[in-house]
Amino acid sequence: MWQRTRSYDSEDNERGACEWCEYALVITLATVLLLGVSGLTVFWILYYREGFGWADDIPEKQFNLHPALMVAGFVTFSGFSVLLYRICRCLRRIYVKLLHAIFHALAMPCIVIGFLAVLDFHNKKGINNFYSLHSWIGLTAMGLFGLQYAVGFFSFLLLLICSKGTAGFRASLVPVHAAFGVLTFVLGVAACLTGLTEKALFTIGNETYASMSEESIVMNAIGVSIVGVAIVVLYTVRGTGGHRTRTVAAQHPS
Amino acid sequence: MWQRTRSYDSEDNERGACEWCEYALVITLATVLLLGVSGLTVFWILYYREGFGWADDIPEKQFNLHPALMVAGFVTFSGFSVLLYRICRCLRRIYVKLLHAIFHALAMPCIVIGFLAVLDFHNKKGINNFYSLHSWIGLTAMGLFGLQYAVGFFSFLLLLICSKGTAGFRASLVPVHAAFGVLTFVLGVAACLTGLTEKALFTIGNETYASMSEESIVMNAIGVSIVGVAIVVLYTVRGTGGHRTRTVAAQHPS
Repeated sequence: MWQRTRSYDSEDNERGACEWCEYALVITLATVLLLGVSGLTVFWILYYREGFGWADDIPEKQFNLHPALMVAGFVTFSGFSVLLYRICRCLRRIYVKLLHAIFHALAMPCIVIGFLAVLDFHNKKGINNFYSLHSWIGLTAMGLFGLQYAVGFFSFLLLLICSKGTAGFRASLVPVHAAFGVLTFVLGVAACLTGLTEKALFTIGNETYASMSEESIVMNAIGVSIVGVAIVVLYTVRGTGGHRTRTVAAQHPS
Repeated sequence: MWQRTRSYDSEDNERGACEWCEYALVITLATVLLLGVSGLTVFWILYYREGFGWADDIPEKQFNLHPALMVAGFVTFSGFSVLLYRICRCLRRIYVKLLHAIFHALAMPCIVIGFLAVLDFHNKKGINNFYSLHSWIGLTAMGLFGLQYAVGFFSFLLLLICSKGTAGFRASLVPVHAAFGVLTFVLGVAACLTGLTEKALFTIGNETYASMSEESIVMNAIGVSIVGVAIVVLYTVRGTGGHRTRTVAAQHPS
């Protein structure tokens, strides 16, 4: 929205003020939701699920790393990374790209350790792996995340060594990277929602969950916050991958 | 994509051919997925869940209407409706709008009866209503669906009685209606995925689900198809609600 404004509507002051209001509102809302969703997940685990652990007597404490780290990786860090890329209008493009890469680099260990935590928990408890819809969606999201990071790092940072020679290639890759980025984020969100539903039924149990216990409401609130984050992020990136982005990218491929 | 082509790239024949290939591919893929997902859901219920019923000895048969009708309403009919609106380039605009309204009108009874089926089932079995994340997401999606239908019908069809006088208002409403339409669709998809996860754990049970029974794989396949539909629909509507849509709408508000 605000990027577009620069090209098309900058002569319209009143509209410009509205856009700045919207800009400030979205940044504030996004920050509150992105930090809030991870904060709420950590609170839920510390207050209702005995906190975190690894290789001690309670494997459930090790499992607890899974939701906390996956929400941090796929929602909080990835969300900030996507938002930063779309809303930083004052910084030089290379710094924005570096920030985008750094936030995704912070998401990476969260996702890897979050994945190992549940894998090791399942193996310790003799539970099968990769049987649920949640795991299928999550595995696809993880695969795409890795692929996107590798392709993005190589194409948009390493290839800057030969900036002019690769400009066309990099510009043509922008809408593909953006589209698959949105897909990865949406799949991450879907994995979180199905995972929360599974965890509620496994751990709280059908009957207590249905009685709307305190913990049920906290878990549902985590889900609702994740949906809120998804709405704000999708709102910010709407239009990505279309003709306009390709045109802008072709003009400023670095 | 193809709508945009008319305005910007029509002089480029090679690109035009590519766009038509993409157009044909997306239509085929979308039709297969949209029909496939409802077909697979009905197959699952007929083959593994004893089919449908209402007010007979087995309330579970009444519950079975819930997933089948919700998938038909929120995914198949709504998906076709959104796609038709975006890809019909040969028809007059008013016919496209009528088709969009008719497909949503077909989705409406599915969603209403699907909702009543589960409400009545819960009451018969003494299960609480509206406690789960799935129900919260589903209720929001239903509310938005009703609101969108009412606002859309009033603004884009009824107000055509006074076509010239309402052109500005209708044009300004287009991006809002489009953005909330995408949101409703995404929430519908999220409700389907969390609902499938709940149903798998409730009915197949943790252990059989974890053993990757035939039915688990069929249910996961329904979930994967729903994700596939969401990807195709979101891909088709990318760019909706942005500056371009507003400009086009201002030029052709009817």
